[in-house]
Amino acid sequence: MSGPQTPEPALGGRGASSTGSQDEDTADGIQSSHRMLSFSDALLSIIATVMILPVTHTEISPEQEFDKSVQKLLATRIAVYLMTFLIVTVAWAAHTRLFQVVGKIDDTLALLNLACMMSITFLPFTFSLMVAFPEVPLGILLFCVCVMAVGAVQALIVVYAFHCPHLLSPQIERSAHRALYRQHILGIVLRGPALCLAAAGFSLFFYPVSYLLMATVIFLPYVSKVAGWCRARLVGPREPPAHSLEIFTFDLHEPLSKERVEAFSDGVYAIVATLLILDIWNLRTSEAKPFSEDNVPDSKDVKAKFHGSLVAALGASGPHFLAYFGSFATVGLLWFAHHSLFLHIRKATQPMGLLNTLSLAFVGGLPLAYQQTSAFARRPHDELESVRVSCAIIFFASIFQFAIWTTALLQGGETLQPPVRFGGREHAFMFAKLALYPCTSLLAFACTCVLSSFSTAIFHAMQIAVPFTFLLLRLLVRLALAGLRGLRGLRGLARPTHTRPVPGATDDAQSPLLPAPC
Amino acid sequence: MSGPQTPEPALGGRGASSTGSQDEDTADGIQSSHRMLSFSDALLSIIATVMILPVTHTEISPEQEFDKSVQKLLATRIAVYLMTFLIVTVAWAAHTRLFQVVGKIDDTLALLNLACMMSITFLPFTFSLMVAFPEVPLGILLFCVCVMAVGAVQALIVVYAFHCPHLLSPQIERSAHRALYRQHILGIVLRGPALCLAAAGFSLFFYPVSYLLMATVIFLPYVSKVAGWCRARLVGPREPPAHSLEIFTFDLHEPLSKERVEAFSDGVYAIVATLLILDIWNLRTSEAKPFSEDNVPDSKDVKAKFHGSLVAALGASGPHFLAYFGSFATVGLLWFAHHSLFLHIRKATQPMGLLNTLSLAFVGGLPLAYQQTSAFARRPHDELESVRVSCAIIFFASIFQFAIWTTALLQGGETLQPPVRFGGREHAFMFAKLALYPCTSLLAFACTCVLSSFSTAIFHAMQIAVPFTFLLLRLLVRLALAGLRGLRGLRGLARPTHTRPVPGATDDAQSPLLPAPC
Repeated sequence: MSGPQTPEPALGGRGASSTGSQDEDTADGIQSSHRMLSFSDALLSIIATVMILPVTHTEISPEQEFDKSVQKLLATRIAVYLMTFLIVTVAWAAHTRLFQVVGKIDDTLALLNLACMMSITFLPFTFSLMVAFPEVPLGILLFCVCVMAVGAVQALIVVYAFHCPHLLSPQIERSAHRALYRQHILGIVLRGPALCLAAAGFSLFFYPVSYLLMATVIFLPYVSKVAGWCRARLVGPREPPAHSLEIFTFDLHEPLSKERVEAFSDGVYAIVATLLILDIWNLRTSEAKPFSEDNVPDSKDVKAKFHGSLVAALGASGPHFLAYFGSFATVGLLWFAHHSLFLHIRKATQPMGLLNTLSLAFVGGLPLAYQQTSAFARRPHDELESVRVSCAIIFFASIFQFAIWTTALLQGGETLQPPVRFGGREHAFMFAKLALYPCTSLLAFACTCVLSSFSTAIFHAMQIAVPFTFLLLRLLVRLALAGLRGLRGLRGLARPTHTRPVPGATDDAQSPLLPAPC
Repeated sequence: MSGPQTPEPALGGRGASSTGSQDEDTADGIQSSHRMLSFSDALLSIIATVMILPVTHTEISPEQEFDKSVQKLLATRIAVYLMTFLIVTVAWAAHTRLFQVVGKIDDTLALLNLACMMSITFLPFTFSLMVAFPEVPLGILLFCVCVMAVGAVQALIVVYAFHCPHLLSPQIERSAHRALYRQHILGIVLRGPALCLAAAGFSLFFYPVSYLLMATVIFLPYVSKVAGWCRARLVGPREPPAHSLEIFTFDLHEPLSKERVEAFSDGVYAIVATLLILDIWNLRTSEAKPFSEDNVPDSKDVKAKFHGSLVAALGASGPHFLAYFGSFATVGLLWFAHHSLFLHIRKATQPMGLLNTLSLAFVGGLPLAYQQTSAFARRPHDELESVRVSCAIIFFASIFQFAIWTTALLQGGETLQPPVRFGGREHAFMFAKLALYPCTSLLAFACTCVLSSFSTAIFHAMQIAVPFTFLLLRLLVRLALAGLRGLRGLRGLARPTHTRPVPGATDDAQSPLLPAPC
């Protein structure tokens, strides 16, 4: 089974599912929680991401964008979207922690988990209410009620699991001070809801405070994470693995299960990729009236405008498909980078989890980029803003991935898979892969400042060029490193030209890495 | 590792990822395919399911439903939706087979897989084109081009994988007649596209034939599956496991990997659960104009109709939330049943895969049920049809799950986890769980025929009652079986009152099961 640092529901579940004990468990109605967790991950990632839809949709519909600047609108709306995305990820993180403690499930827990998911699915709805009525208390109130409901169900799960200890993860089941952990977990689970209760209260007479409190709900865990990380930096990242295994499932400030981080990220990438295509014909099916000129055509329009020629009608919406191809390639390649990144990482520590969340939040913004860049046909006048927004989204989505990798290097051997501990070729590949999008998006942004009139062309050129650059880059790095095979490490790392900030980081990454055991 | 009959990317990947060999592989850019596969599963399940959206949306918008009968419209549209759902699942099945043969991936394969996914994501778009312009060849043409593109990329993957054999699954890599397998697989991968090429050709002068051909593309694999199953029935389901391991990865008519079936199903359930909530405010954001009376309110409407009182506005859309709760509970509990079903199943044979696909297709129809039942406020006149449609959808979604279980029993010990081989309590639980929804939906349907005026009340009552029945049922079965603990098997099985068809099935399930080794 892979690295000792995660409880790994996957292996715990599937691995055991052929052993006698697991069979008896199944016979007693106790089940491995693996599949329920991946289902929850899929659900939560989708919920977190579809929140971009009200942003993109309210973006298109009204005429206000002709008097206001698109950039300002986007800034505020993206901020709200990010906030709720982070809220869902906080709920997800709490859920992850919860089921790192609750090792197995029975039917009651499965049903409780469904109830939890159901209350979480109301977050986007109450969110859109809040966006629609920022100053009406009811919107905030409902949102807070949702969060509290989630917290309540999760608390129920904790209580139930501690009521029948055989459902707990073995370490906790065996441990002497179980009650302590219970308080620990209940505290973490109920922290957010408590603040939201206060927020709900304030919403009744002074709503700005509620927004402040909700912001606290989001950032509190991350603040504590960062604090914990700084502490870890001072103590030094390397404890003996046995000990770190000890802490892992107990101390709730320890890394999240890598499998669940991957599952959640996959869900986000998958739904984003789907939202892109969904946008193409969602515009048609539901908003045919305003924009039928440049979306998938209405049969009436085809007769009216294109003399019944569907080809002409589709040709009219060519830019959409170009934008779609570009955006899908972007999503796919960002997933690809994320995938190869986590191939080299053994555990997701708190700062990495935070960076991953931020990266995903911007990935969730990509449909917005698509919808922006595909809207040129009808709004050429804010083309420049759109391209810049898209570049910014792509840049942040990718730079946070890059940050994950550098953080992993900084945190030393425990977080890396053995083969990449010594740098060299794999490091070069990773830096090349991860640095590609930040550089190209920055480049595109810079170009739009210089040649503002060609911004669209530049942007699409970038989107189309990058995939080929990926292949080319691999060949380049491979060739160069074939020569450098003998002397690994720093020179191998400094190889890709666009990783300026890195060598410093990897200098102090190498020194602790070299002695690390394989 | 669990049962010997599946290659199990999950375990193959994660299990190996800490061994030295795997590390070297990673260093050579070769990676376990587990995560890429789950990502693809998520993407494909979402793509397959969002195809319901054009159905639900075109359902609401125009006035045509006031002159036509809703039932007829639904019948035709659901048929088209089912067809494309099956097409995507065929693509998915081909993809699964492909990566049961291709054991590991490198960057090139990952990028090729992304290209494959991208071409698949165009299926819904071309599908909606076909729906919009049934008699224009271009729609069919584009759809076929999509399918052909998918086939081409998959063929590329096969060729590439056989070009560097270390990427193949070990059995095939080591086997003598590798070229044979290659032809096998290429044949399966290219069968569909070839037919679609013909369909595209016919679409130019006589399009009905193209529809016929596309239907063949869908059902051909299932026909061969059923044939294979009958053959298996004649030969007898039990070969020595070692032998069945032999065939498994080779013979492409053998079971699909259970993990991927689960992952795909989870994706469908997750996106369906999300589409429900998405519908709630999607109607608002994109279709506010026609229906703002009874959806999440427009700020203008709130001022206009409800004198600025948001509470009143939300109260007006109460039925929606009721319907949402009911539908989410339905989806959740169907997932729950599916989950406990696959806990007891060790491998997904062809007929079970087919039944699962059908069940999922109807699960994907649930948003339609939701949108129907939540549309009463504005179209009371076709309330009865809506309720009946919803009942039918739920009935079929659940009855196919029931069929999976009975099929598993019929196929004997190999397909079941050891603890359930001997029937008794677990069987009783499963039958109770799986029989609940078919019975209640049938009951509700019957009631609507008798008391047609109360149909909505009946339907909502059913949706709300079932979750509690679930808990109650468990207690009932548990109590009854506590008494029957001594004498297991048939009497334990006959216990739940609504499993009439079953005892016969389990009679011949028992006899082969009892001698089966644990």
